[in-house]
Amino acid sequence: MNATATAGVARRAVRVPDDSRLDWDKVGPAVELLLRDYVESAQANAASVWARELWDHIGRGLDGGKRLRPQLVCLAYAAFGGTDARECASVGASFELLHGALVVHDDVIDRDFVRRGHPNVAGIYRDAGLARGLPIGEAKHLGSSIAVIAGDLLLTASLRLLEQTTAEPAIRSQLTDILHRAIADAAAGELADVLLAGPVPAGDLPAGEADGRIDDVLDMERLKTATYSFEAPLRAGAVLAGAEAGAVEAVGRVGSLVGTAYQVIDDVLGTFGDERQTGKPVTSDLREGKLTVLTAFAHPDSASPGSGGPDLDQMRDALHEAGADSYALTLAHSLVTEALDEARRADLPPALRSELTRICNHVLHRES
Amino acid sequence: MNATATAGVARRAVRVPDDSRLDWDKVGPAVELLLRDYVESAQANAASVWARELWDHIGRGLDGGKRLRPQLVCLAYAAFGGTDARECASVGASFELLHGALVVHDDVIDRDFVRRGHPNVAGIYRDAGLARGLPIGEAKHLGSSIAVIAGDLLLTASLRLLEQTTAEPAIRSQLTDILHRAIADAAAGELADVLLAGPVPAGDLPAGEADGRIDDVLDMERLKTATYSFEAPLRAGAVLAGAEAGAVEAVGRVGSLVGTAYQVIDDVLGTFGDERQTGKPVTSDLREGKLTVLTAFAHPDSASPGSGGPDLDQMRDALHEAGADSYALTLAHSLVTEALDEARRADLPPALRSELTRICNHVLHRES
Repeated sequence: MNATATAGVARRAVRVPDDSRLDWDKVGPAVELLLRDYVESAQANAASVWARELWDHIGRGLDGGKRLRPQLVCLAYAAFGGTDARECASVGASFELLHGALVVHDDVIDRDFVRRGHPNVAGIYRDAGLARGLPIGEAKHLGSSIAVIAGDLLLTASLRLLEQTTAEPAIRSQLTDILHRAIADAAAGELADVLLAGPVPAGDLPAGEADGRIDDVLDMERLKTATYSFEAPLRAGAVLAGAEAGAVEAVGRVGSLVGTAYQVIDDVLGTFGDERQTGKPVTSDLREGKLTVLTAFAHPDSASPGSGGPDLDQMRDALHEAGADSYALTLAHSLVTEALDEARRADLPPALRSELTRICNHVLHRES
Repeated sequence: MNATATAGVARRAVRVPDDSRLDWDKVGPAVELLLRDYVESAQANAASVWARELWDHIGRGLDGGKRLRPQLVCLAYAAFGGTDARECASVGASFELLHGALVVHDDVIDRDFVRRGHPNVAGIYRDAGLARGLPIGEAKHLGSSIAVIAGDLLLTASLRLLEQTTAEPAIRSQLTDILHRAIADAAAGELADVLLAGPVPAGDLPAGEADGRIDDVLDMERLKTATYSFEAPLRAGAVLAGAEAGAVEAVGRVGSLVGTAYQVIDDVLGTFGDERQTGKPVTSDLREGKLTVLTAFAHPDSASPGSGGPDLDQMRDALHEAGADSYALTLAHSLVTEALDEARRADLPPALRSELTRICNHVLHRES
């Protein structure tokens, strides 16, 4: 996530003229407090010194996130008239913990030991294993094993926090449904990501989407990222504020489209972007042989992953020459256009529509 | 779990003379139905064909389990006067799903691709990867990655099922606390298991518990297995039936002790037992360099795991010659004695006390 995009969400919210309206200035600190409280309580109740230490690393991993998902909860909640900062923060923090869980497990699956320029949970315990004299393969397995455990703790934390909201039963039940649907979609998306990866089928496939793999990638990205990061937080905020079912569905559809565009841009940044900006090695997707909009479009020649390694720079050049990056940007634009059309068709509150438009523009300009 | 032990729980329950009393004959089929319904509903709502297939494999993995945890829920629930088979089954099925989740993630951590003599989720997708032409290392990573996803789905399923019980809010909140505590303990136990593993410290340590490692192992086994498999199901059954707090605590303490004894016996079976009985390679613990009561007692000479492999048969012989197995059996006996003392001290219902005594005997005689 680009810092500018989310800082923008916060700044804009402050400018809203109606003082009684809930804004991120009130909700943001409450989210931080809830996350810190959760980690501290988990540490205080930890069954062992090791578990306390693990929670310490988990807590640091949560620090400094952009809080995109809580901000989207807040945006929809406020737009539909919600006023309870604490309730809104609980739901937002729940999504932030879910994000943490999915990132930790995704890193295990992608064999990434670095996140935002620092060792992630797996990296920290891999390094501890190396310091204990373990061979590198065993040290990595130790790190990944503990990351599996850490992700489980975060996943249950996410559900736990939502259980503790004081929303009335009917609302809480809908929120729980939304969160579980988000988890199921994220799992299905991750599964597709893993199964679509691997060496590109042999033969000189023509560039383009004729073989349907672009649709597979977009479906995967919608499930893996767009649901839990955009659609579900927006829907949850709307539900918590008591919005009507039609409006909840509409804001969800907009979120799903914007979120998919966001992930398409992420593919571009993940391959052509600045490593300091993305916080993880830009070649991670290529190294793991992941199918992205770029590789689905241009089928770069690649060796099998792990087999001594393909020449990643060369693959990147080939993708650029085939026009994969500009194709991806065009695709992201058309998804955003569709999202804005949807927002116009539905009778969403004007303030929400203008915020969604601004978010769409930020998503599209992350690459700049 | 030994088939005889749990079949015994079912048989004995049938013999209870009072016809109005809830027994496993009523609850068991309801548990099966709930598990099947959950899997079928997840399949019907699956976001992709791949996700539906994964749920199919998850469902088969759940089939044929001994349902130890639901039986313990039922035992305590009935003993404290509970009569609602459906409620009891919901809580029981929730623990069965938690067990499924922990087993799947534990197998990832232990690099086991077989469970009960068949490929587990990781094994199924590893084999599919091999069939697609992936090198073995990549195929295993594919299998493990999908097992991480499967465990996440089962973990959330466990919490989901508990959310759907119709117990009154105060009871449900206690049940949720018990389940979350069980998950936290299991995570702390798994963490200890991973961190205690590895090459035995250099030097000829004397056999015995003087170095405190036996206590570390017992603590680890209590957290990793006894809480979620014995203590929590018994407590949950008691809470659901409206038992008093003191009785809930007492039945929990008994469960914790019996569960630890169970795991100590499991260590013995896992090293000296019959592979057809345990359903997984008997050398798995030794291969992974896991610290068990046996290896903590006798410090067998071992090569680093993964380094071409220690001679597992030789290690097993050395453990036996050092008396590690008979030490472990004595330890299990003393834990069970402590459990039965606790059951006597606390004012538990006589029927429950006699059932717990029978379970203790079964736990001790699993090795025969």
